[in-house]
Formats: sequence, C-alpha cells, structure tokens
Amino acid sequence: MRKLRAEQFGLTRKVDYGSPEQNEAVRRIVEAVRTEGDAALLRYTEQHDRVKLDESQLRVTESEIQAAYDRVDAGFLTAIREAAANIRKFHEKQMRQSWVDVQPDGTMLGQLLRPLKRVGVYVPGGKAAYPSSVLMNVIPAQVAGVPEIVMVTPPATGGKAGIDPYILVAAAEAGVKEMYRVGGAQAVAALAYGTATIPPVDKICGPGNIYVALAKRSVYGVVAIDSIAGPSEIVVLADETADPAYVAADLLSQAEHDEMASAILVTTSEALGDAVAVEVERQLALLPREGTARQSIDGYGAILIAETMTEAIDAVNRMAPEHLEIMTAEPMALLGRIENAGAIFVGPYSSEPVGDYYAGPNHILPTNGTARFSSPVNVDDFVKKSSLIYYSKDALLANGDNIMTLARHEGLEAHARAIEIRLERERNA
Amino acid sequence: MRKLRAEQFGLTRKVDYGSPEQNEAVRRIVEAVRTEGDAALLRYTEQHDRVKLDESQLRVTESEIQAAYDRVDAGFLTAIREAAANIRKFHEKQMRQSWVDVQPDGTMLGQLLRPLKRVGVYVPGGKAAYPSSVLMNVIPAQVAGVPEIVMVTPPATGGKAGIDPYILVAAAEAGVKEMYRVGGAQAVAALAYGTATIPPVDKICGPGNIYVALAKRSVYGVVAIDSIAGPSEIVVLADETADPAYVAADLLSQAEHDEMASAILVTTSEALGDAVAVEVERQLALLPREGTARQSIDGYGAILIAETMTEAIDAVNRMAPEHLEIMTAEPMALLGRIENAGAIFVGPYSSEPVGDYYAGPNHILPTNGTARFSSPVNVDDFVKKSSLIYYSKDALLANGDNIMTLARHEGLEAHARAIEIRLERERNA
Repeated sequence: MRKLRAEQFGLTRKVDYGSPEQNEAVRRIVEAVRTEGDAALLRYTEQHDRVKLDESQLRVTESEIQAAYDRVDAGFLTAIREAAANIRKFHEKQMRQSWVDVQPDGTMLGQLLRPLKRVGVYVPGGKAAYPSSVLMNVIPAQVAGVPEIVMVTPPATGGKAGIDPYILVAAAEAGVKEMYRVGGAQAVAALAYGTATIPPVDKICGPGNIYVALAKRSVYGVVAIDSIAGPSEIVVLADETADPAYVAADLLSQAEHDEMASAILVTTSEALGDAVAVEVERQLALLPREGTARQSIDGYGAILIAETMTEAIDAVNRMAPEHLEIMTAEPMALLGRIENAGAIFVGPYSSEPVGDYYAGPNHILPTNGTARFSSPVNVDDFVKKSSLIYYSKDALLANGDNIMTLARHEGLEAHARAIEIRLERERNA
Repeated sequence: MRKLRAEQFGLTRKVDYGSPEQNEAVRRIVEAVRTEGDAALLRYTEQHDRVKLDESQLRVTESEIQAAYDRVDAGFLTAIREAAANIRKFHEKQMRQSWVDVQPDGTMLGQLLRPLKRVGVYVPGGKAAYPSSVLMNVIPAQVAGVPEIVMVTPPATGGKAGIDPYILVAAAEAGVKEMYRVGGAQAVAALAYGTATIPPVDKICGPGNIYVALAKRSVYGVVAIDSIAGPSEIVVLADETADPAYVAADLLSQAEHDEMASAILVTTSEALGDAVAVEVERQLALLPREGTARQSIDGYGAILIAETMTEAIDAVNRMAPEHLEIMTAEPMALLGRIENAGAIFVGPYSSEPVGDYYAGPNHILPTNGTARFSSPVNVDDFVKKSSLIYYSKDALLANGDNIMTLARHEGLEAHARAIEIRLERERNA
C-alpha cells in the first residue's frame, strides 16, 4: 500500500453523472413509462432483461414467496431473523413523537410527525442482490409506520422471470407485502408516476446501476429519493496498540466490494503502518475476490502516517469517511473529536462487518465526503413534519400589530390586511 | 374565482429547470469561480450587479452593520426581535440529543448528533429581500449549534455596493457574524468551493432567482442544499361557519406574492364559496399589489365545492398544500385526517401571516405537492448523525457465526474473514 503523510490528504472522488447517451436513454425510458404505463414497462423488461411478461405476471405472488422459503437454508434464515430483530430494535430508538407547546394565552404551536404513505425500495438483481440491503432499506420505513412498502427488483434474465429466493425471504421477513419483478430505469419511472399495475409512491430508495441512479435523479421532486451512493470507503484510525492483522482484514473487507472502494489506515505509528502493509499483502493473496481487492488497494488504498493523534484526527475529519474504525489504546476518548463519519466502530472487536450485517445501525451511509452534512439512513427519512399553529383571539389581539409592522415593511399589504380585518372586527366587537 | 367540484382536483405545477442558455451560463460561472476564485467573483459582480469591488470590500464590516441599526425604525426593531425570540423558542423544542443503548454483554449502539460546521445563507437583493426569511433560515442553523453561519447577498446595483439595512439588522439579530456582498450563481459557487476570501461551507440554503436555484442544483453533492422552492400556495378548508371576509383576506395574502402563487378554498358550503368569491373581488380592488394578486387568482385560484367533509379532506391531501388553514366549526377534530400539509393554521385567528412572520414555526415550507414527503425547514436540517457501534469481545464471540453466515451468503469472503480472524484468536487465546 502507498505510504503518505497524513497532513494534506483529502478524499473526494467524482460523482458519476452518466454519459450523454445514458442520460438520453433514461430520459426516453422514463417518458415512455410515464405516458404508456405498463405497456412500456413490459417492453423494456423484454428488451433489457430478456423476459417476456404480461401485466398479470408483474406482481410476485404469495405462493412464490412461500416457495422461496423452502429454498433458503436454515442457517441463513436464523441469521437474517436475528439481524432483522437487531435492526428493528435500533431503529425503534430513533422514533420521535409529535409535540405541541400550549401557552397561557391559548396559543398552541407544534410539530406533527407522520409517516410517508407509500415507499418504493429498489433492489438490484444479479451479483448485487444483497438481502442485508433489503433489510436496511425496508426496516426503517416500516418502523416509521409507512403503511405501504413496495419492492421492485428485476427478473432473472433469459426468460425465467424468477427472483433470488434470498431476496424474497429478506423482503418478507422485513415486512414487505407488495413486490414487483421489474428493474432498471423503467421500474423507477413506474414507482414515480404509477402505472395501472403499480400505484405511485412518495419516496424511492435503494441502490442500483447508473441507469437506476440517473432515473432516480430525474424523478427527484415528483417523489423523494434517497441519496445516490458513491463507492464504499473505510478509514481505520489506529495507534501502536492495534493488531495489524485485524486492521488489514478490515481494510480488505472494504476493498473486496469493488475496484473503486477505498481503504485507508491513518496511524501515529509508522511501525503499525509497516506491519499492516505486510498483513494486507499476506491476506490479499488468500482472498477469492483478490483481483477486485487488489485494484481497490492499489488505486484508492493508503497508509497515512501522522505526527500526532491531532493530525490523524484532522485527516479523518477532512476525509469524512463512510465507515471509521478506531483501534487505539483509549478509543472512546477520541469519539468527541470525530466530527465527520457515517458510522464509527470503536475498539478491536467492532469490525466493520458487525455493522454491515447485524448489530442494528444502518449500513446505508453517506459516501464521498458527504458525512460532513449527511446521515445514515434512519427513521426520520420516512417521516414528514407539519407545523401546527393555533392562535387564540387574545394572542392575535396581543401580537397583531407587530405582525402588521413586519408585513408592511416587506411591502406585503394583503398580509397586513388579513390581520387588520380581524383586529378591527374583534376590537370593535 | 373559478368554482369547481373538489372530487378530482389536484395541484402540481412544473418545476423550472431553466433554459439551456441559463444552465450553460450557470455552468460557466460556477466553473470560473471554482478555478479562479475571488477574481471571478469580482468580475461577475461587476457584470451583473454593475458594482466594481476589490477583495477587501467583499466582507461587510462591523461598522457597516452598526450603521444599519441607525437606519431602521424602532417599530421594526421591536417586532423583529419579538419574532426572532418566538422563532428561536419554537426551534429549540426541535433539538434532540445523542443517545446510546448499552446492553448487558457490553455492546453499545448509538446515534451521535452534531451540528454542521459551516452553513451559507443566500439572501436575494432588491424587492425579494425579506428580513423574515433571513430569520427563518438562520435561526434553525444557530439553534442546531452551527458555529459558522455566513450570509451572502448581492450589493445594490449601480455602484453603491450597499445592502438593505433591514437585511443587515435581521441577520445580526439572528446571530450572523460573517456577511459578504456577493449574489447570483457566483455567490453559490463561492460558498460551495471557497475562494481566498470566502471559505467553503457544508450546506447552502435560502431562496433566489433561477440562476441561484440552478447554481445550487449544480453544486448539490459537493455541499448540501435546501430544497428548491416553487411558487407559494394556500388552501383554506372551511365550512358554513367560516367568515367569508377572513377567508378572502387570507387567500389574497397568498395571491399577492406572485402571479404564480395559488390560493384555493375547499368548502362543503356552496353559500360560503359564493360569499368568498364576492369578498375576494371586493378586497382585491383595494390592494396595492392588485395586478399581481389578480393574475394569481385568475390563473391559480379556485373555489372547490365538496359534497362532504371527507371529500374535502381528500382534496386537501391530494394537493398537499404548503399552507393549510382550517376554519370549520370544530377544526381540531379534523387535524388527524390531514395527511399532507407544510403548515396547518387552525381556527379563525390563525391567519397565515401569523406564521409567515411571527408565531415561531418556520415559514420555509414544502411547495408544489412535496408536503407528501418533505418538511418545513427545521433544526434537523442542520444536524448530521453518526452511528456508534461498540462490540465487546463477548458480543463478537456470541454473534460472529451469524455475521459470517450472512457475509458468505453475499459472496463477501473478506467480510467473513475479518470476523473469523478475531474468533480464531480469541477462542484459542
């Protein structure tokens, strides 16, 4: 791995906005689904997934979901149920209540929280079909109280129209009752605008390829979308007490994701840096996804040597990593100085996969430096707020003049008169 | 006003994505500021605002702010201080705490909340310079604990380089210490990328013209942005007990904003509808901004007659209005059936200007039907979350096998090995 000075290191990579051709293809697909509905959905499914369906086959049946349960192994089912319970428990703690502030003059001001009504979760097909991501997208929406959660996922290509049983089971365990076998930009368009078969949603979330990402971007405003994820990142902050084999294993668990993934060690110990470099090489050679992990390590891996812990923490905050592990003598003592990180894994036993799969916090995290201003997926993402304003007659009489002063200063006379007409009537009443 | 059946009425208008020429102009400005910094800022300020400045004049001085206080009238100062106190008090109630869940096996899972570090607030110049909007953008950020809040606003055109003293005073009252006289797409680019004079921010908020909106859209991802507002809307839900003069005054307070503003009455009482139509005409003729208000009423105003209150409420929920007033015999009883609305004003004395200026809840609200999934500006918009994950050795030993099962199912062997290497060492220790 490259060894660099921590001082000036930053980490930001380009967001992929797609080629003009990709943008044009997505625009055409979205427009076709918006105007033609199911007919366009089925046409693009035939073109892109090489599966010929009719409308009645779009929705996954109850018996298909039951059949999926018979095909997944018992160990997986136990593990995913345990994971789902942990994720649910964590996200339930994020729930908030509506509140109201009642004042002596009768004024009531408040904030009402209500779940979104209908949410669509996109689940990619093929290699990128991760049951864990199904849980991480669906459960926060479910905990928020969203009554209608719908999953879309492309049918297996080549005429079989099946869906990975592990995905169906994960979705069912998370509580999804409505699933459609449709993917790509056409699925996103259907969720945004609705078709005869698929009613429209209020928000679309979940990862996908560049076409899915561009389609989500293009329907933003018609519906809400989640953020568009960049490649995955880990930063390990460690001192001389860290175990180089653990550090290396954790860096590689990120590097195996894809060639663009980034794995960085920031350390105050040059000796640890050297030992980790050796361990990364040793473990890398033994990995089934060695090629991917090696490209990631060569392209985006680094060992940053910092003079002091302060300098090391500055580098971490500049990078604002998606995942941060802290393996130092007293890791909790550093927590307050970490300003920017999606998820913080503390101590030698909090390896990143603990959070990726199981512990409960969400694994969908801000990438590409956006932890400066963004948050992990959470229950708030599926809740909307409304302000509540109740002014009594007394409150209006007491405050009306100030309100008119401000309205008139801004040249909004009709605003002032909406108050004045009430003051005049009530004062004369 | 047009009288329509409520049944099938929906309200969604097009978002303005700008012309190709406007997009190209913004792209050029943003790129120039990104690469040339202050030089480009000053050049565009000279071109667009016809004011020639040097770098040292960009920042508004302390003495200029003091001078502004001498120029605003006392009634305004009293009113804006009262409003600021109300807004602060309301938004303080939105504040949340970091939390942690400690389990018997030593596991600690939590959610850390931290304010964004630096936020930029755009304030338009000229007619659209609203002191109330300064408060509504700045105070939530300040309550959230954002340590650096910076305001940008264009200098008065034509060589004077001054800024409306009311804007300076509102910003100072809200707590802004750092203000720059620069506007347009160039100001947004400076906030996103930073220049020698203006350090970059983490989030940009505040309204502006189409160039400002397009510039914000183009830097989204580099920084966070707030939502891009559409024209303002009010829906009044009323029955036969409502006062037609109050209803008409409130509709017109929205209509005077701009020609695209929308003001709609939904009522179960045809008699009220007719009376409101008469009142709107009567009051309209007396307004200084009659022309604007009339265009708005003619283009986007409507009186919807519903058969039943259920039908009326359905229409409201379909429209998902920015502002909703409820003037019925028992307005609080309907609150639970309102699913979608940015702010809900209850009863005859809660006229919309009460909330626009003064009561405390934010006046920056979701427009154009986005109240289905968006919220008023609030403290959460200036806070980011990080997940905290601490697994003890015991917790990892107890759960490691399930984690490996899930990782291996997804073909991510390096994830499994990051757990396995720890289990092997600790079980053999």
